[in-house]
Amino acid sequence: MSLAIKDDEVDIVIGALRSDLTTFMNEWRPMFSRFHLIIVKDPDLKEELKIPEGFNLDVYGKPDIDQVVGSSTSILFSGYSCRYFGYLVSRKKYIISVDDDCLPARDPKGFLVDAVAQHISNLTNPATPFFFNTLYDPYAEGADFVRGYPFSLRGGVKCALSCGLWLNLADHDAPTQALKARQRNSRYVDAVMTVPAGSLIPISGINIAFEREAVGPALVPALKLAGEGKCRWETMEDIWSGLCVKVVCDHLGLGVKTGLPYIWRTDRGDPIASLKKEWEGVKLMEEVIPFFQSVRLPREATTVEECIVEVAKAVKERLGSMDPVFARAAKAMLDWIKLWQSVGSSSSRSSAV
Amino acid sequence: MSLAIKDDEVDIVIGALRSDLTTFMNEWRPMFSRFHLIIVKDPDLKEELKIPEGFNLDVYGKPDIDQVVGSSTSILFSGYSCRYFGYLVSRKKYIISVDDDCLPARDPKGFLVDAVAQHISNLTNPATPFFFNTLYDPYAEGADFVRGYPFSLRGGVKCALSCGLWLNLADHDAPTQALKARQRNSRYVDAVMTVPAGSLIPISGINIAFEREAVGPALVPALKLAGEGKCRWETMEDIWSGLCVKVVCDHLGLGVKTGLPYIWRTDRGDPIASLKKEWEGVKLMEEVIPFFQSVRLPREATTVEECIVEVAKAVKERLGSMDPVFARAAKAMLDWIKLWQSVGSSSSRSSAV
Repeated sequence: MSLAIKDDEVDIVIGALRSDLTTFMNEWRPMFSRFHLIIVKDPDLKEELKIPEGFNLDVYGKPDIDQVVGSSTSILFSGYSCRYFGYLVSRKKYIISVDDDCLPARDPKGFLVDAVAQHISNLTNPATPFFFNTLYDPYAEGADFVRGYPFSLRGGVKCALSCGLWLNLADHDAPTQALKARQRNSRYVDAVMTVPAGSLIPISGINIAFEREAVGPALVPALKLAGEGKCRWETMEDIWSGLCVKVVCDHLGLGVKTGLPYIWRTDRGDPIASLKKEWEGVKLMEEVIPFFQSVRLPREATTVEECIVEVAKAVKERLGSMDPVFARAAKAMLDWIKLWQSVGSSSSRSSAV
Repeated sequence: MSLAIKDDEVDIVIGALRSDLTTFMNEWRPMFSRFHLIIVKDPDLKEELKIPEGFNLDVYGKPDIDQVVGSSTSILFSGYSCRYFGYLVSRKKYIISVDDDCLPARDPKGFLVDAVAQHISNLTNPATPFFFNTLYDPYAEGADFVRGYPFSLRGGVKCALSCGLWLNLADHDAPTQALKARQRNSRYVDAVMTVPAGSLIPISGINIAFEREAVGPALVPALKLAGEGKCRWETMEDIWSGLCVKVVCDHLGLGVKTGLPYIWRTDRGDPIASLKKEWEGVKLMEEVIPFFQSVRLPREATTVEECIVEVAKAVKERLGSMDPVFARAAKAMLDWIKLWQSVGSSSSRSSAV
């Protein structure tokens, strides 16, 4: 069912939080080598990057970020958020983004999973957010819509975002990780599904893909915890950005999928040491989720940029007085939209290749 | 995590549409023999039932139905709807219902799936309808909630309905079945998930379980197609009833799960011959789904019976003039609630054992 897309319509964006990418790149070589890569070095990382030969890539570091966005705004792009600089400078239709502590997974039959091909399939086949299909992705080989599924909804809608999953180390928060330090995820669930419209989901940025031209501006680096560290469980930037994307997709009638592809996630960091920092993020979620569940965008907001500006306004208004982190997030969202427009990635596609 | 429940809290209800249940019963013996069975014979079926020895069961036929509900109402219980008579006369907390063309499935490792145990686990562990967990059932062994999932929602809510799936013959409608006559479902998706609140789902009655005391009256035999036959793809009774249950569960804050357990579904009937009949059901869905997506129950409706009465009123008001099938459905829903109360299965539990 998948539409053919050209290799040069895809950028693979990698945020480099550690300097030695040798193993990471070599393991991904069979899947990555056909595509253009954008590697963005965490501005806080001092050492030189070690990247093996044989890839078509551009590397961006702090000087590049400062030059494009100005040093006052470059704070947006520290830590895991460095990847968003790659989203900003890409001119491709699709972006795939994988954390640098991930390796290709194997399916239950032992075959390597081509995460890139699965993400592209997810994005180029329609999504079905308006009615649940019990046999999961109706467009998958050997699948279909079940009895009772209205024919008028079987065409689906454009899929804007594809969220993959993780084997081995799951994406827990620090308390859970500390409590279940030895627990590993070994359950391979062979399914892709559309997250229903109106339902929110904690989108992890570890292994995602999206149509940049459709929803790029909604992937926004905005929620930066005061004590944010360099472990995933010390961050909430992707969860926030995922809530923004989902709300915008629901408003604009676009789809979000979750499930395949899996990646293999290796250990990094000490969950016990992170516990102190992480509670900040865990506590914030108690305010953040009800906010996103109830926020409604005005009918006049018809572009992704307009939608994000509206979400930012509502964040400032309803959450701003609760915690300074929210006022900062609202400002970062507005800054991001200005950047997106000035750097020329606007969804108007005026300067898109 | 699962609470221990006693064997005598469960009724397994089987609607018998064919007379020879020998293979069916013998194959299910390892899972069924500990429990009490209610077998309801399709009132249209003339031959005697053949049921092997060694089960604890009660069999109900047309005379029993006539006696309990009166011969004018007994039409409600013809064909696949005969099972609902079993729901009506049961006095147990939980009901499991499996079509008589289903056999136990095997998981990818070749082990027989205990569908009864999985349904009980689904019903006795909480559901999480208010936020999606990307790693599916957070209460499954080796699973948990992912980063970003609010702690205040991790307790979940009561699960009222568990919908299992089908290997081999999928649950397609007649057009799909006719078009893809040789397609078989071989994808074993190792997951249970809560269907998010506000999202509707085409619930198939082939393989389900529910807490009768919590939502029994919402499983209502109401939508009977004019040309309804004795093949699943010629019916919509379960789809309608599933939409009723989901709307009621969303209103009352109860959960609905889908996924495991699988059963193995064998072929029955000629999809080509069914095509003419089935289009009626397929066409109705174009009106039925938007109705259920938009129906809102009044805050005063706090019991399942009250909710179904409200849905019936709305059906009569908004769909009644479109097609006589809807007016009949609305009336059947009201009849059903009266029956449920008079036969003493009311959720007030006044006469429940």
